[in-house]
Amino acid sequence: MISSLHGSSFIGNSRSVSTEPCGYAVQPGTGAILEPRYLAATPEEVEKTMALSAAAFPIYSNQSGKNRAEFLRAIAREIEGVVEDLVERGSLETALPEARLRGETGRTVGQLRLFADLIEEGSWVDARIDRAQPDRLPIPKVDLRSMLRPLGTVAVFCASNFPLAYSVAGGDTAAALAAGCPVVVIAHESHPGMAEIVAAAVIRAANLTGMPEGVFSVLYGGGRTVGQAVVKHRVTQGVGFTGSRAGGTALMEIAANRAQPIPVYAEMSSVNPLVILPGALERGEEALADAFFGSLTLGVGQFCTNPGLVFLPAGVGGKFLERLQSLVEAGTPGMMLNAGICQAYAHSTAAVAAAEGVKTLARCSNAAGAGQGGPAAFTIGIGDFLKQPALQHEMFGPATLIVRGTLAEIEAAIPQLEGQLTASLHASDAELAAHASLVFALQNRVGRLIFNGFPTGVEVCNSMVHGGPFPASSDGRSTSVGTMAIFRFCRPVAWQSFPDAALPAELQEANPIEIRRME
Amino acid sequence: MISSLHGSSFIGNSRSVSTEPCGYAVQPGTGAILEPRYLAATPEEVEKTMALSAAAFPIYSNQSGKNRAEFLRAIAREIEGVVEDLVERGSLETALPEARLRGETGRTVGQLRLFADLIEEGSWVDARIDRAQPDRLPIPKVDLRSMLRPLGTVAVFCASNFPLAYSVAGGDTAAALAAGCPVVVIAHESHPGMAEIVAAAVIRAANLTGMPEGVFSVLYGGGRTVGQAVVKHRVTQGVGFTGSRAGGTALMEIAANRAQPIPVYAEMSSVNPLVILPGALERGEEALADAFFGSLTLGVGQFCTNPGLVFLPAGVGGKFLERLQSLVEAGTPGMMLNAGICQAYAHSTAAVAAAEGVKTLARCSNAAGAGQGGPAAFTIGIGDFLKQPALQHEMFGPATLIVRGTLAEIEAAIPQLEGQLTASLHASDAELAAHASLVFALQNRVGRLIFNGFPTGVEVCNSMVHGGPFPASSDGRSTSVGTMAIFRFCRPVAWQSFPDAALPAELQEANPIEIRRME
Repeated sequence: MISSLHGSSFIGNSRSVSTEPCGYAVQPGTGAILEPRYLAATPEEVEKTMALSAAAFPIYSNQSGKNRAEFLRAIAREIEGVVEDLVERGSLETALPEARLRGETGRTVGQLRLFADLIEEGSWVDARIDRAQPDRLPIPKVDLRSMLRPLGTVAVFCASNFPLAYSVAGGDTAAALAAGCPVVVIAHESHPGMAEIVAAAVIRAANLTGMPEGVFSVLYGGGRTVGQAVVKHRVTQGVGFTGSRAGGTALMEIAANRAQPIPVYAEMSSVNPLVILPGALERGEEALADAFFGSLTLGVGQFCTNPGLVFLPAGVGGKFLERLQSLVEAGTPGMMLNAGICQAYAHSTAAVAAAEGVKTLARCSNAAGAGQGGPAAFTIGIGDFLKQPALQHEMFGPATLIVRGTLAEIEAAIPQLEGQLTASLHASDAELAAHASLVFALQNRVGRLIFNGFPTGVEVCNSMVHGGPFPASSDGRSTSVGTMAIFRFCRPVAWQSFPDAALPAELQEANPIEIRRME
Repeated sequence: MISSLHGSSFIGNSRSVSTEPCGYAVQPGTGAILEPRYLAATPEEVEKTMALSAAAFPIYSNQSGKNRAEFLRAIAREIEGVVEDLVERGSLETALPEARLRGETGRTVGQLRLFADLIEEGSWVDARIDRAQPDRLPIPKVDLRSMLRPLGTVAVFCASNFPLAYSVAGGDTAAALAAGCPVVVIAHESHPGMAEIVAAAVIRAANLTGMPEGVFSVLYGGGRTVGQAVVKHRVTQGVGFTGSRAGGTALMEIAANRAQPIPVYAEMSSVNPLVILPGALERGEEALADAFFGSLTLGVGQFCTNPGLVFLPAGVGGKFLERLQSLVEAGTPGMMLNAGICQAYAHSTAAVAAAEGVKTLARCSNAAGAGQGGPAAFTIGIGDFLKQPALQHEMFGPATLIVRGTLAEIEAAIPQLEGQLTASLHASDAELAAHASLVFALQNRVGRLIFNGFPTGVEVCNSMVHGGPFPASSDGRSTSVGTMAIFRFCRPVAWQSFPDAALPAELQEANPIEIRRME
């Protein structure tokens, strides 16, 4: 056990004194209890957290981009300093392989530094200047200047499947802190120890860089009680969530029913359809099956970008299916993130297998140990598929449903799909050019459109769109990965006829921080 | 009667054949019935409208920015060509003065041309390019390129108080068409004839510039039936609304409860607080009262930016109040937009007058004719004000509530205000510098912060923010006026590993349309 774990929430810079237990971390597979016992933040502590956050907002949001960038970089350094602790605890809590834990740490610090670069440079605020024209007729034009400003306190829910990159100091936290918003994190019950290690690192970074107390807190106690209290709280002005459709839609409802509704960015559910045209098969059906199987089983299929749905034209692709069948049968079951996810995977694959018209192409023939899930592939005719909307729901794990129909049927089916994070088209260049309406239909359902590739592997960069129409995301106008995520937690504010000295530096006449402006 | 009025909806390029009446326009004041009788679109016609709109989307959204700009400019020209009809019919339907109708026509065509310039230039799409790095370790980097794309069909509700600038071809329509979204307008019962004149102009412009049928439709039948059907329809992907809080929140609820929730941009309710500090009074109390009274009574107070709430420090401002009292008493009642608004104004001012602690400073002493409303001013102590949240509700008309308290009480009250479109601070430069926390508190409640000015007069420009936290707007992350409004109806889409020729021009390697990109 890592000696520094206390099992208590971070109420700003102090630790919770709650004695109300909310549980232990449990090792996937063995079911072993991991010390320490975690304690739920009390209602009074939630209230104190929100008060500290509200008090931090005017101070933190008025820090310069350079200062906030220093804070983000300090977080990255502090996390790097505890990577061995994260690997040790993460191996126990999540059963993720060491390479994955190290890789995800790298991604987490990388995205913090990407946001640091963005806000240090500063042009992201979209500064716009319309100067006064006092002599304009019939009425004078006033001086008006606008830029993006932070919303206020943001609640971030940790994800089960990314204990680092979508959790305490993950994408939503990095984006919100970069924008100038204080953050209140609700830890995930699957990896409370990792949350505590990262939280302590963030608090150290805040103190090292002189950030106000309350800029960052981490609460234990679960989404249903502590999490809902935070989302309902007047101080909270935005929510970031990655998880189940049920969890995300519950938060959307709570946020919509507040006296002041607030934006919720919930990334929930996507089956990431692949459409395979004959030209892609002609390049080599077995190689395509190999690559597809690799994407399907990456991370035991527990990625939001897992390819859970394939449209394959009827009458072709025999070797693709044959190869996929043998790969699935010979596949290796993998340890899943927690017992609940493992159970849900068994249920959802059983439901699909039993649905009308579904044939099981292959199940993993190697026995799954406790907590493990193995790959599975099913086929169905497009008519039966469209009759059963439940077949569009995610099987969270390494399972896929292959839908067979004519090209015309496939194109007609696309607009009937729910919103998706991604869609992938496998085709020749000539087919791509010839099927513009199919491509447009796919584009219309997704945030990211992939040609001859696979959806897993989400690059953290300026152009990434990791979002899409509902239910892929509660708000398809945004992304949870990449620098555009900063826009989630901002709104434009205009200053009219203000003296230069009273304007934010970004809008002052001399452009002292030398950003790109529209003027 | 203008001979071209038929009283029927525009179902794409054809006219409704409904025989179901939904009413006549009524002249404010006289109550005279204005021909023709308007007919409600039938459910089948709504369905056909949405099908045409869905069919237009792939064609229209893939038009170049230059082509869409031509369409917007043609709309502007066609509207200018019917300005005399608009003045004739508008004078009857709305009782707005001729100068206002001409001015609002100018604003409407001006904003169409502003959006045309924006999309012709093209950089607004926020194109982002991350090129492939095939040799990157440990894994290759794929080519990823993103830009903003239109949401799909947008429903626009006409506003009672701006029959042109926030109606058929108003700000939301211009922004949605500019973004590449087909538009379905729901006409307002107060000015159906003006809606018909403008609708015909837009349809002519669409045909002149070769835009697909269905890119634009206008439906009669009212918000409660036809409007709700459009918002509920699967094809609709966004909503623009300007009107009452009850109407806006009803649309928010419908949109949130769809199988696929969609964004609603409802501009609803704002009392646009003014905070007056002693330094502003020292510059001349009577001149301040004169200017305030001008803003209060502009357009018979029927602007969303009307200054309905004033914070005036206790113990000062006697001459300001005295002057305001005499101005209000000597004020001229003005014809209000319709009988319902006139009645609501009488009710809301009576309710405020009767509220605990409220004193009537002045009522207009000149008798109001039928349909008219006169100015009114009330005062209250800040303690009584804060105890009664209903006093923050809008009195839609030329009435204001003046709240008295110490400077500390005023600063403490600001965070308790609901969200606002604007706040105005009247103060000396020294006071502005000395009250940074008050300014921050105001900034936090509004979309536009004004120094030593008044909120009425909304400039259509790049930096305008006409929005604010709920209930000023349902979505404070956006503006309904100015070029930033285009972002309402867009979402980012990324293309991964696409051949150059299959990418939108904005993302092609050679940058053929020469826009600014992040790369």
